[in-house]
Amino acid sequence: VNSSVRVSSAEVRQRLRERNLELPVPWVLPPGVSIPANLVRVVGTTAWVSGHVPIGPDGQLIGTFGKVGAEVTLETAQRLAVAALLGALASVERAVGDLGRVKGWCRLHCMVNTTGGFSDYPAVFNPASQLLREVFGDEVGGHARVAVGVAGLPWNVPVEIEATVELVAE
Amino acid sequence: VNSSVRVSSAEVRQRLRERNLELPVPWVLPPGVSIPANLVRVVGTTAWVSGHVPIGPDGQLIGTFGKVGAEVTLETAQRLAVAALLGALASVERAVGDLGRVKGWCRLHCMVNTTGGFSDYPAVFNPASQLLREVFGDEVGGHARVAVGVAGLPWNVPVEIEATVELVAE
Amino acid sequence: VNSSVRVSSAEVRQRLRERNLELPVPWVLPPGVSIPANLVRVVGTTAWVSGHVPIGPDGQLIGTFGKVGAEVTLETAQRLAVAALLGALASVERAVGDLGRVKGWCRLHCMVNTTGGFSDYPAVFNPASQLLREVFGDEVGGHARVAVGVAGLPWNVPVEIEATVELVAE
Repeated sequence: VNSSVRVSSAEVRQRLRERNLELPVPWVLPPGVSIPANLVRVVGTTAWVSGHVPIGPDGQLIGTFGKVGAEVTLETAQRLAVAALLGALASVERAVGDLGRVKGWCRLHCMVNTTGGFSDYPAVFNPASQLLREVFGDEVGGHARVAVGVAGLPWNVPVEIEATVELVAE
Repeated sequence: VNSSVRVSSAEVRQRLRERNLELPVPWVLPPGVSIPANLVRVVGTTAWVSGHVPIGPDGQLIGTFGKVGAEVTLETAQRLAVAALLGALASVERAVGDLGRVKGWCRLHCMVNTTGGFSDYPAVFNPASQLLREVFGDEVGGHARVAVGVAGLPWNVPVEIEATVELVAE
Repeated sequence: VNSSVRVSSAEVRQRLRERNLELPVPWVLPPGVSIPANLVRVVGTTAWVSGHVPIGPDGQLIGTFGKVGAEVTLETAQRLAVAALLGALASVERAVGDLGRVKGWCRLHCMVNTTGGFSDYPAVFNPASQLLREVFGDEVGGHARVAVGVAGLPWNVPVEIEATVELVAE
């Protein structure tokens, strides 16, 4: 990955604005919830990004809640997957200072809350994957992905995204 | 991991042939499906391998489809897990040029499509894990593993394997 | 991560003793079970830790078995998650010689065996996460986390933990 292709936070925010999207403020945990893990854990040049649930620009969990294919449509799930990804982006930015430190997205672990009746899990995350490539470019924003159905997600959110990101040395 | 133990694509293919196995051609996505993620994402010397589903030598999805323990027997699931692993091997080869660049397999994330009634998930992937060790040798082919039951997999395939692989520097 | 904050096996064991906890002996596989994967796979300076199930100090699987929210209460699941983490710690120690080689915990992949009726998966692993931070300190013991509900776990255990750990070079 060539340093000339890296994409600064300012550029990321501009490209999101062009799509009527924005990075949220930090996640506001639901009342009574505490999580003794790091939203992003940087060790060496690797940023390990905790599972992120869909939040709005104000950092609050957003619905619809429930199972995709039952209470939640594919279209809603796609929108919420983008919201989860934006939350992850915002967490990475806060952890590393500027998104221009991202050398490459490595892996997205994408989970759908499902009963198993609906099985097009890749489609749920395609807009999020596409957005990542468009905002960072293919060279930085490309990523491996696993997209599967799980039996439950915290607070009954319909989708969650965990990620691994490689950084340039400071 | 000593360079003398690395195993070239030619050797891998020979060892597979001795077992009546072969690497498939690239995965042919089902009609109408597009996936904006990389089958293998190489960043630095790490190859992040997307979730791979069972395909045949011609690159097409192969059945049986459904839940292991219900529509799919343990024996069929074991055979399909090997097919998924062979697809992952083929993807790694295409991404890195020659499997001799593999310094070590790191991790297999193995998923069984299940209702939960069947719980011997490790057994489903033992032939695949064993094959990886036999073909690459213990030093290169050894790997950590997580083998669990998930609520659903894309296109209702019974098994899926995601992986992480460490490469030697070019 | 500063070398002065690293925590030796002796210190880890002392801090566990103060909490009436101890590292178990190696995991004793259930009768008839073999697993051709490594409990811990070290490649370069990364230790990839296989999924660990709850074991007691004697290395045997411990119950209660079943789904959290059904047969297994939150409190029991929390205790078993700590037992799974202690097993993972013991495996890392055996693989690397002394826990003082741990530069930083990176990621915990935490899975709850669930029907989906119960959804407070983060709470199940909070005591384990907290313990890791207390024993290793925040700088070494901090970690990203994903905590979700899966449709099934081997031998119907209620929780399982997979991990990634970064080591200092030998």
